[in-house]
Amino acid sequence: MTQKNIAVGIDIGGTNTTWGFVDEGGGILVGGSFPTFADEPPEKLAARIAAAVKADWLSIEQDDMALLGIGMGAPNANYHRGTIEYPPNFDWEVVEFVKLIRQHIDLPVVMTNDANAAAIGEMTFGDAVGVDDFIVITLGTGLGSGIVSGGRLVLGHDGFAGEMGHITAQRDSDRLCGCGRTGCLETFASATGIVTTARELLSLRSDDSTLRLAAGDGLTAADVGKAAARGDALALEAFEITGRMLGRSLADAVAILSPQVVFLFGGLANAGELITAPVKRHMEDNLLPIFRNKVDVRISGLQQKNAAILGAAALITRERIRNPADV
Amino acid sequence: MTQKNIAVGIDIGGTNTTWGFVDEGGGILVGGSFPTFADEPPEKLAARIAAAVKADWLSIEQDDMALLGIGMGAPNANYHRGTIEYPPNFDWEVVEFVKLIRQHIDLPVVMTNDANAAAIGEMTFGDAVGVDDFIVITLGTGLGSGIVSGGRLVLGHDGFAGEMGHITAQRDSDRLCGCGRTGCLETFASATGIVTTARELLSLRSDDSTLRLAAGDGLTAADVGKAAARGDALALEAFEITGRMLGRSLADAVAILSPQVVFLFGGLANAGELITAPVKRHMEDNLLPIFRNKVDVRISGLQQKNAAILGAAALITRERIRNPADV
Repeated sequence: MTQKNIAVGIDIGGTNTTWGFVDEGGGILVGGSFPTFADEPPEKLAARIAAAVKADWLSIEQDDMALLGIGMGAPNANYHRGTIEYPPNFDWEVVEFVKLIRQHIDLPVVMTNDANAAAIGEMTFGDAVGVDDFIVITLGTGLGSGIVSGGRLVLGHDGFAGEMGHITAQRDSDRLCGCGRTGCLETFASATGIVTTARELLSLRSDDSTLRLAAGDGLTAADVGKAAARGDALALEAFEITGRMLGRSLADAVAILSPQVVFLFGGLANAGELITAPVKRHMEDNLLPIFRNKVDVRISGLQQKNAAILGAAALITRERIRNPADV
Repeated sequence: MTQKNIAVGIDIGGTNTTWGFVDEGGGILVGGSFPTFADEPPEKLAARIAAAVKADWLSIEQDDMALLGIGMGAPNANYHRGTIEYPPNFDWEVVEFVKLIRQHIDLPVVMTNDANAAAIGEMTFGDAVGVDDFIVITLGTGLGSGIVSGGRLVLGHDGFAGEMGHITAQRDSDRLCGCGRTGCLETFASATGIVTTARELLSLRSDDSTLRLAAGDGLTAADVGKAAARGDALALEAFEITGRMLGRSLADAVAILSPQVVFLFGGLANAGELITAPVKRHMEDNLLPIFRNKVDVRISGLQQKNAAILGAAALITRERIRNPADV
């Protein structure tokens, strides 16, 4: 009888927490979702997660199944310390969340931030299988990055590596970032960034655009994407500018890391070619000659899947992630 | 009888090739140097190196000694392929140099570029012993970088990672780089870069400076360093500008890699505090808050030693370097 290895993947978000029991092929056997209640103490969330995991495991457990552990992705999660630290949109400071879960469940528990989980998911269940050097860029409200070098996640000495959203993309910029600085890459290359860019273009110019109908606070990145897909010139220019800012910062990242592929993931990646084409073009234009025509830019292979859950589960099923204990 | 493990470290430069037989404590038992003759075919250099290595080994070999292999550092060397590719100042294109050496000597032979060798040397014999995440910046004619993440050298998918000299430090700059682009970090932060900066300051301003005596083509980075050490205001400003350009690019690199230490190495690093102080200050000013006051900037522990030979030898004595075969 072959043993079926199962890992739990949990995605803790500011609004909802979602989980799934994932098999080695990336299939989700059972799972669920509930509100995170980010204003409540973390102990409560840990207890609710533990109860849900136990209940789901009882519902599917069979003799040939082994539950290997629990992987979690969360904002500002630290792999080394097992902490969630000052997560935006939570009323938490530094929370030892791995310890809280372990008080309920005696299994291996690991945690990392959302973008790192996406990178591990990509190399386990997505399009980075067999790719040892790549970057996943998550384009949501902000910009996150998960970096794999030589088959291992780049974590840095403190577990906080991969903050490519806070590379300075433009010096002396007037775009204020949530981190308190200006000109950070995520103020340009993110769902928020492309909306800001579109609004700037609308205010600076007078040409016709379907975006004028949606302008104001209601304008979303999806609106810009839809308009661009219909050929709206102003929306296309917003993608061009977004692609230029991301592409030229990626050229710098390539000089440092020499990845084989850059995967784009998240809401803005739904735009497909509209975003990959300008990113790739501007990256190429800014690359050192030895890197030209060697780095692929494409949409994540998990874009339409439960990437957050798959990636979190893969933290457990995959051993190639660097384990601080075995360095 | 304890076996004494010895590795040969070879530094291939455009002018001279230098080698040493290195023990596990970083001691050099015997070594030498001869002109590289970079305009001659690489086969000749390989044969001369092999003959010198064999002769030196015969002169020191004892029963309790084991010769583990040969490590080499060379410009544009590729660790994965064992090649030297289009090295500046050589009449070579793509040369399979490891293979050439192996035709003479049946021992493990590995090769990487100078900055990577410096990084491996730093973690084996220098001040990065026990530090798993750090960057070595070599400040010579150009700027090289060797990056260690999670205890392993970052090589990238093609072996060319760590080209931090070609991060774009200033967009729309008129400083032309040897790579054909403009505004690369090494056009500011290198021996060449600080001389350019000093010349610009001399031409833009009329205040007194001892550098005016040395101005023109004869001005060197060492001149700028000496003048700054004597308190010359213009020379100090050249260091300030160099430190700003390097410091703010390092802030971006920290966001990507989160290293614990940045080591400065090479001719310009002889300036000591004159260079580390402005680099650290401008790096701090540009860091994302979570990285502030966590990253040390200091002079390499091998600055006054045979770092190139020690680093090349450490490629062999050290197993923690990523081996493509064991990924």
